Amino acid sequence: MPDKPSICIVGLGLMGGSLALALQRAGWPREIIGVSRSPDTRAAAQAGGAVDRAGATLAEAAPDADVIVLATPVRALLSQLDEVARHARPGALVLDLGSAKGEVCAAMARLPEGLQPIGGHPMCGKETGGFASADADLYSGKTFVLCPLSRTSEAALLTATALAEAAGSRALVLDPSEHDRAVAAISHLPYLAATGLVNAVAAGNDPLAWALAASGFRDTTRVAASDAAMFLDILMTNRPAVLAWLDLFATEMASLRAALAAGDEAALSERLAAASALRSGLKL
Amino acid sequence: MPDKPSICIVGLGLMGGSLALALQRAGWPREIIGVSRSPDTRAAAQAGGAVDRAGATLAEAAPDADVIVLATPVRALLSQLDEVARHARPGALVLDLGSAKGEVCAAMARLPEGLQPIGGHPMCGKETGGFASADADLYSGKTFVLCPLSRTSEAALLTATALAEAAGSRALVLDPSEHDRAVAAISHLPYLAATGLVNAVAAGNDPLAWALAASGFRDTTRVAASDAAMFLDILMTNRPAVLAWLDLFATEMASLRAALAAGDEAALSERLAAASALRSGLKL
Repeated sequence: MPDKPSICIVGLGLMGGSLALALQRAGWPREIIGVSRSPDTRAAAQAGGAVDRAGATLAEAAPDADVIVLATPVRALLSQLDEVARHARPGALVLDLGSAKGEVCAAMARLPEGLQPIGGHPMCGKETGGFASADADLYSGKTFVLCPLSRTSEAALLTATALAEAAGSRALVLDPSEHDRAVAAISHLPYLAATGLVNAVAAGNDPLAWALAASGFRDTTRVAASDAAMFLDILMTNRPAVLAWLDLFATEMASLRAALAAGDEAALSERLAAASALRSGLKL
Repeated sequence: MPDKPSICIVGLGLMGGSLALALQRAGWPREIIGVSRSPDTRAAAQAGGAVDRAGATLAEAAPDADVIVLATPVRALLSQLDEVARHARPGALVLDLGSAKGEVCAAMARLPEGLQPIGGHPMCGKETGGFASADADLYSGKTFVLCPLSRTSEAALLTATALAEAAGSRALVLDPSEHDRAVAAISHLPYLAATGLVNAVAAGNDPLAWALAASGFRDTTRVAASDAAMFLDILMTNRPAVLAWLDLFATEMASLRAALAAGDEAALSERLAAASALRSGLKL
């Protein structure tokens, strides 16, 4: 791997576009080749200085790259691995940015032996997508999870770590299933709870509720505005972990409801105080 | 009612302290008399310019006031109405700041006939409490709900409206039960959901989850850090409305779980997309 690698970033939306901007600012890659099916996105990414050049397909861009970053939604990138296998240069590092790692790492294990696959998940994002939302600071100060496979070389892991750090993140090596269970708790479950809150208020058909919604509702439901297609992919590729946390959450909500319905102030108070103390103590 | 009324604010925590600071800045009252059992709070409120003077009891402060604002937790203020009845000057406006209005307005209806009761709920707050968190801008640009009783005079409602506007808020007159149903949806339910999320993650006993928690978890659970005793009061005085919304929420969460468990992508996608469109369209 050269000191200044050539990087191909597939998908120039929020995550891929922001990574390109951050790496260019850090002066880390020799060049960044963007891949997007959209001519408008390719033009915007070139005009914005995110990529040095851009193509429509992996076939055009992958053969020149020391590092291939798959920054498309989880199931799109799973379907792109065949093309990666056909077009990647021997020895290339293949890194993805998907939010669920078990299925991705299992699929990456089937890549040709000469390639160096690593599952990745930068713990950052926002509700608006597309290159127009890309931001060179998106990765700054965030945790960038890396899931090397058993066959992945130490050198490839060092390169992935250097890439994460060049983008401003802290690299954290995790097992895919550990990762998937933890992010189901703190990302996929909260997303579903926010979605359920918005849909419950809609089902209650109370226009005054929307009119009175203020900062509490705004923050609690913010992530429900995320791209639904992206989250459908994440949920469908992390089902067992998400279902387990949904059940724990349902149990907690049922306990809160039972205590309130029974007027059991001691039980209710205990649960509210426990959450308040825990949440107040989190440095987020 | 004089043009520049004398105001007694009972409770100098976040809500009462912030109201005092905002009204002083607006130059609206002739004087503000604070009531707090805590000598430290009284001293801090005087030193901070929030109140012109302060006493430990309603008996000391209420007889001089044209307007009495009850800024204590809901059930504390319910228990203070007897003292208000004994010590308030005839014709005084009695306004509270509690988050649930049905029980408060029913109790206020039992105040002596010469008093002018109005239920109030400024739609603002934050997770940290006490006078140390008070902020002259807390009420700025927020909706301040007013629930006059059938016996409340037009003049008293005008004074309460002027007070809300002097604090920087927009007054909105509502029926107590309409108010309670709507805020149960957009404040009390989200608070319980945030509490349930924090407690579910705790129950799952996964230290890595806390380590990976980022902006999504931070915002979705922010309100769970609120003062548990304050919210216990709110929930216990708004039980029917909160229970009804909890049931709607449980139904939504069960539908999301069923679609995910069955791999029914069409059903899941429809619910995620509906929430995303609704939430993206909200101006919050």
